Amino acid sequence: MDKQTENGMEDTPLFDPKILDLIDFSKCNGEYKPKISNKNPGDNLHLRPLSLGDFDRGFLKLLSELTKVGDVSQKQFADRFHQMKACPGGYFITVLENTETQEVVATATLAVETKFIHSTGARGRIEDVVVSKQYRGKQLGKLLLDCLTLLAPKVGCYKLSLECKDPLVDFYSTFGFSKEVNQNYMVQRFWD
Amino acid sequence: MDKQTENGMEDTPLFDPKILDLIDFSKCNGEYKPKISNKNPGDNLHLRPLSLGDFDRGFLKLLSELTKVGDVSQKQFADRFHQMKACPGGYFITVLENTETQEVVATATLAVETKFIHSTGARGRIEDVVVSKQYRGKQLGKLLLDCLTLLAPKVGCYKLSLECKDPLVDFYSTFGFSKEVNQNYMVQRFWD
Ligand SMILES: CC(C)(COP(=O)(O)OP(=O)(O)OC[C@H]1O[C@@H](n2cnc3c(N)ncnc32)[C@H](O)[C@@H]1OP(=O)(O)O)[C@@H](O)C(=O)NCCC(=O)NCCS
Ligand SMILES: CC(C)(COP(=O)(O)OP(=O)(O)OC[C@H]1O[C@@H](n2cnc3c(N)ncnc32)[C@H](O)[C@@H]1OP(=O)(O)O)[C@@H](O)C(=O)NCCC(=O)NCCS
Repeated sequence: MDKQTENGMEDTPLFDPKILDLIDFSKCNGEYKPKISNKNPGDNLHLRPLSLGDFDRGFLKLLSELTKVGDVSQKQFADRFHQMKACPGGYFITVLENTETQEVVATATLAVETKFIHSTGARGRIEDVVVSKQYRGKQLGKLLLDCLTLLAPKVGCYKLSLECKDPLVDFYSTFGFSKEVNQNYMVQRFWD
Repeated sequence: MDKQTENGMEDTPLFDPKILDLIDFSKCNGEYKPKISNKNPGDNLHLRPLSLGDFDRGFLKLLSELTKVGDVSQKQFADRFHQMKACPGGYFITVLENTETQEVVATATLAVETKFIHSTGARGRIEDVVVSKQYRGKQLGKLLLDCLTLLAPKVGCYKLSLECKDPLVDFYSTFGFSKEVNQNYMVQRFWD
């Protein structure tokens, strides 16, 4: 994790990689054919925290397959990265890297909001899930979701939520998420 | 802000009170009768950031009118407070204090999740809105919502969201929130 990036910038993980060892994949309900897991996500693939060097490994290009990213300079990326890292236990952005091509091919975020209610509890949210086009349909989205769902209670979340479009409701149901009656999601937008 | 609390603990705001000066209340769409505002919320009332001393001013008792809080010791409160404060720009927990009785009578939270998407944007969420029973119906819930909605874009949020129960959909609509088509809120709970 301390290797240098292409630009000579020291590489740093967003959170302690040992936190991913809290994931007890034997507790996972999903079936995988072929069998993959957090420790063995597939040929040349490695599951790990986002790192500072992922700017050079196509992390932002990957996110642009999900939504608008805009022009983000290396400095802006690094500043945002360090702001998140300064917030311990707040941001578990997890990636799958193809270690041969040194490309980030999938990512999902567990964002944690700490609270005073529920015995100074925390609620988790799944955000920004995307698998690179040529890697879709290989169970990688499923693997990231299973991993972050198993991780959430280990890092103190009493509940975990997400928002998604209609065609993805069935996908997320398979990880234990459901729409609750009498719960309304409301939003307003200030800019794009 | 530097006065001592009853327990001799130094009082500290969760975030710089100057941030609340970013609220341009003249831009507020809501009508207030009688007229109140962020600067003049009513007799003996003061709008300000949550502070460490609010443990002694009934902040947790107030939250228990919203949901389960559980037994939270002063140390647990302080630890959680400092964890939030260490995350700059993350937690804008705002309260209304009755400065005569030294009681916190209403609160609402703007929680900010920073992102890489949307030009290293941020999304805000309204959380944990509650007005103490004997203070309801005095426009204080409305005041807190108007303030945090005006604040959200000033602290970088490109969108602002919340979840609420059916009877509150109309209440939140008045602040510019709406239910979007093709957006589903899904949740799973690990414990209470
Ligand atoms: C949604 C997405 C993350 C799924 O990742 P993936 O790696 O292709 O999915 P997997 O191979 O892990 O699929 C696992 C299962 O979910 C199903 N599934 C995958 N994508 C789905 C979709 N869009 N809608 C419904 N079901 C889907 C698969 O059919 C598969 O089912 P099976 O186990 O019965 O065969 C990926 O398609 C993607 O990145 N899409 C664009 C970005 C996006 O929409 N992100 C989600 C925002 S909420
Ligand atoms: C919801 C709550 C915060 C409202 O605060 P309040 O200070 O009593 O409300 P206000 O006096 O500011 O009311 C402003 C307007 O909203 C309306 N309103 C207030 N509570 C409402 C409710 N529960 N449902 C629908 N409308 C409501 C009022 O009628 C008023 O309308 P008007 O301007 O047309 O007269 C308060 O009732 C409360 O703390 N409830 C318990 C906790 C809770 O449910 N929190 C929200 C969790 S999502």
